[in-house]
Amino acid sequence: MNTLPKNLRYAIEFFEGLPGIGPKTAKRLGFYLLRLPERSLEEFAQNLNHLKKTTKYCKICYNLTEDEVCAICTDESRNKKTLVVVEDVLDLLTFESGTMFDGVYHVLHGRIDPLNYIGPDDIFIPQLIKRVKKNEDGVEEIIIATNPNTEGEATAMYIKSQIEDLNNTPSIMVTRLAYGLPIGGDLEYADYMTLKRAIEGRKQM
Amino acid sequence: MNTLPKNLRYAIEFFEGLPGIGPKTAKRLGFYLLRLPERSLEEFAQNLNHLKKTTKYCKICYNLTEDEVCAICTDESRNKKTLVVVEDVLDLLTFESGTMFDGVYHVLHGRIDPLNYIGPDDIFIPQLIKRVKKNEDGVEEIIIATNPNTEGEATAMYIKSQIEDLNNTPSIMVTRLAYGLPIGGDLEYADYMTLKRAIEGRKQM
Repeated sequence: MNTLPKNLRYAIEFFEGLPGIGPKTAKRLGFYLLRLPERSLEEFAQNLNHLKKTTKYCKICYNLTEDEVCAICTDESRNKKTLVVVEDVLDLLTFESGTMFDGVYHVLHGRIDPLNYIGPDDIFIPQLIKRVKKNEDGVEEIIIATNPNTEGEATAMYIKSQIEDLNNTPSIMVTRLAYGLPIGGDLEYADYMTLKRAIEGRKQM
Repeated sequence: MNTLPKNLRYAIEFFEGLPGIGPKTAKRLGFYLLRLPERSLEEFAQNLNHLKKTTKYCKICYNLTEDEVCAICTDESRNKKTLVVVEDVLDLLTFESGTMFDGVYHVLHGRIDPLNYIGPDDIFIPQLIKRVKKNEDGVEEIIIATNPNTEGEATAMYIKSQIEDLNNTPSIMVTRLAYGLPIGGDLEYADYMTLKRAIEGRKQM
């Protein structure tokens, strides 16, 4: 590595710092950049200079946006009665990757995780509670779609209790995504906890 | 994806265009950039702007360098009598990752690959032949370390024949890296061609 030109080494080291990129991949990517046209690199460089400055939180749902309010919240055709609470924007994108869901979101940007010193007020839970308390959009159902693990579960339980404590919202239903076997999965490889939940949630055919 | 801010989408699409980066990883990397300090992004952007301009071929061995001649060719302590011919700089780095080898290199930046219309003159073979013909450094052995596949083999054979054709170099030995089982590998998973070469190259214990 020390025999490489400084700028190339810098690029490789930057890639190595990215999550999931090992030293071999970082090198491959660094060398690949050299093969790109000068203009592509300049465009990407300009993009990096503007990336953080132009990316803001939507002031309603905390999705990422260039404007005050994100494309989903401004979309008149969406059903504002159903609100999905997700941990981060990548989860939101999974919902948006199909056409089935037309509701709106609230992005927490994290999960309650006491072992890493992340409490309810460190993520956008207070903003969610405030939004539900006002309930300007007439939300009727809140689907909590935090991840199916300990932290996601704790976050879901906390949000549920906080919403139930709001006396002015007797009509809001709080639901959680179903647990079960993943489509295309193999029963043989299912872990027991998933199987247990799949049995509990079984439906008549 | 369409719900994401333009600059973030651009970054994600740039990552998707890199080799070995799928859509999921590209998204993860894009979001990760947002979490980096502004300064890191600006530094990386600046680096991208300079990357191609400051990276040149060493005029002796065609390794990458910022100067006219690379760090390896200028290093007085290296043994210039042994020359390794590699397909690209990543292969050179593999040699340099240990301390065993102290010779010098010639980087071809490719391989002879007729199916992709790459002939001997499209890579740095003529430059190698010229270098060996002059032989200013008194090279005594050329180790051909092209990849162990059809194209690498063809490239090695071609280079060998070209060097033998130089009448003024009777004393230069041309060698090829040994074939055999990889260390830490499992005989069970070895392909037959490798095993065949390992048998052919067996040594008395």
